[in-house]
Amino acid sequence: MRVLKLTVAYDGTGLVGWQRQASGTSVQGLLEQALARIDEQPVTVAGAGRTDAGVHALAQVASCAVGTDLPTDTLRRALNAMLPAQVRVLAVEDAAPGFHARFSARLKHYRYLFVDGPVLSPFVSRYAWHVPQALDAAAMHAAAQHLTGTHDFSGFQSTGSEVAHGVRTVTRASVETLCPPDGMAAALVVPAGSRLIAFDISADGFLRHMVRAIAGTLADIGMGRRDAGAVARVLQERRRDAAGATAPAHGLWLVRVDY
Amino acid sequence: MRVLKLTVAYDGTGLVGWQRQASGTSVQGLLEQALARIDEQPVTVAGAGRTDAGVHALAQVASCAVGTDLPTDTLRRALNAMLPAQVRVLAVEDAAPGFHARFSARLKHYRYLFVDGPVLSPFVSRYAWHVPQALDAAAMHAAAQHLTGTHDFSGFQSTGSEVAHGVRTVTRASVETLCPPDGMAAALVVPAGSRLIAFDISADGFLRHMVRAIAGTLADIGMGRRDAGAVARVLQERRRDAAGATAPAHGLWLVRVDY
Repeated sequence: MRVLKLTVAYDGTGLVGWQRQASGTSVQGLLEQALARIDEQPVTVAGAGRTDAGVHALAQVASCAVGTDLPTDTLRRALNAMLPAQVRVLAVEDAAPGFHARFSARLKHYRYLFVDGPVLSPFVSRYAWHVPQALDAAAMHAAAQHLTGTHDFSGFQSTGSEVAHGVRTVTRASVETLCPPDGMAAALVVPAGSRLIAFDISADGFLRHMVRAIAGTLADIGMGRRDAGAVARVLQERRRDAAGATAPAHGLWLVRVDY
Repeated sequence: MRVLKLTVAYDGTGLVGWQRQASGTSVQGLLEQALARIDEQPVTVAGAGRTDAGVHALAQVASCAVGTDLPTDTLRRALNAMLPAQVRVLAVEDAAPGFHARFSARLKHYRYLFVDGPVLSPFVSRYAWHVPQALDAAAMHAAAQHLTGTHDFSGFQSTGSEVAHGVRTVTRASVETLCPPDGMAAALVVPAGSRLIAFDISADGFLRHMVRAIAGTLADIGMGRRDAGAVARVLQERRRDAAGATAPAHGLWLVRVDY
């Protein structure tokens, strides 16, 4: 059968997340419904990352086997015509027979967006976690450096999660303030006195809620509520209660998946 | 009585616009309700520009007379605590006794945002008008140059509008492609193959639907459906039917008001 690779962007607001659920609207469910209409048979779609309810994706990758021989561009247009505006198929490509969005993934890139300042822009409120205090991005960046390399990340995993082992390799971890290009574009994003701060992390895999638990810990460090050694301590001691709270889902973005 | 100047940002999605209406949620109505609760008496709020349903504001300006002697920062916080997240008071200032948001305004700055490309980003769909064809921003910019100066803009006014005269002075009109700073931030805004194109216009005043009628005409020029002389012709002939269609409200932004 023909294997397709789909690149999908979605605004996670109001969705139950990537994965099909008993109730609520999921990205997987929407794609499977649309593909089944095109293929005139049930289609199962695999996603590179099972993003939680409320999490956004700039370029989630999905794979599926289909019978249709429609050209990829026609498929993209047909899918977008059936999907709601908050889910968009950016690209449809033919993939090698063994391709699987999750198992073939080599590296995943996530971004967690914070916005600080006294007033939360109505244009950012659904896409970044608002922290009223000024965040110390340099302190957060320094703490994030402990994440790179191969570690057991169990301390940043949701309690109750069951994974065989918690060892993952982080190839990049950084915190930086985003600088929009001109005054008007900056105002479009955040009001004066606010900054968008991005925590970027790339790894071969992630544990459940791992990025959000790290983001919560980094926010504590940025606010001076937790010392800079906290990240290293959570990695050493593997105790979830040594880390910060899980940061809210709406600040998290699946940015890209490498194969 | 004490006169306040409020600077307000709002996401116009789902609102009936600035002005109080018989039904639906308006920015004026929300502000008046919140101020009346603080002031314990009815408060009337004037806005610099009566933005239509669906139009956004980065920094609308409003004025009102109040009895309260609460400090401006306390007022800002109290108002934001009562308003929905899509309407945010960015600043509250004490103004001179005769200050009026509309009559004291010297210059208003509007931006109309277009997004082109085959796929509409779910993160832009509420904030820019999607034009699938590639827009010729240079041709649009050249045509927009005819707008600067003092002209009778009646040809760009909604038919049926009643205004004493249509003469306004435009001090700036430009069309440019917005360039987000880095690859990831760019992707956050628009998918590959898309561009955000901004039409910026500043004037001492605007007729009803004037910016949207000009934007519709510029879009036609950008798509090659109308020649570059169209803007000058509408100004000379003052015929609404010589201009393009009124562009949709959700691409329009009230950016700033100067006093």
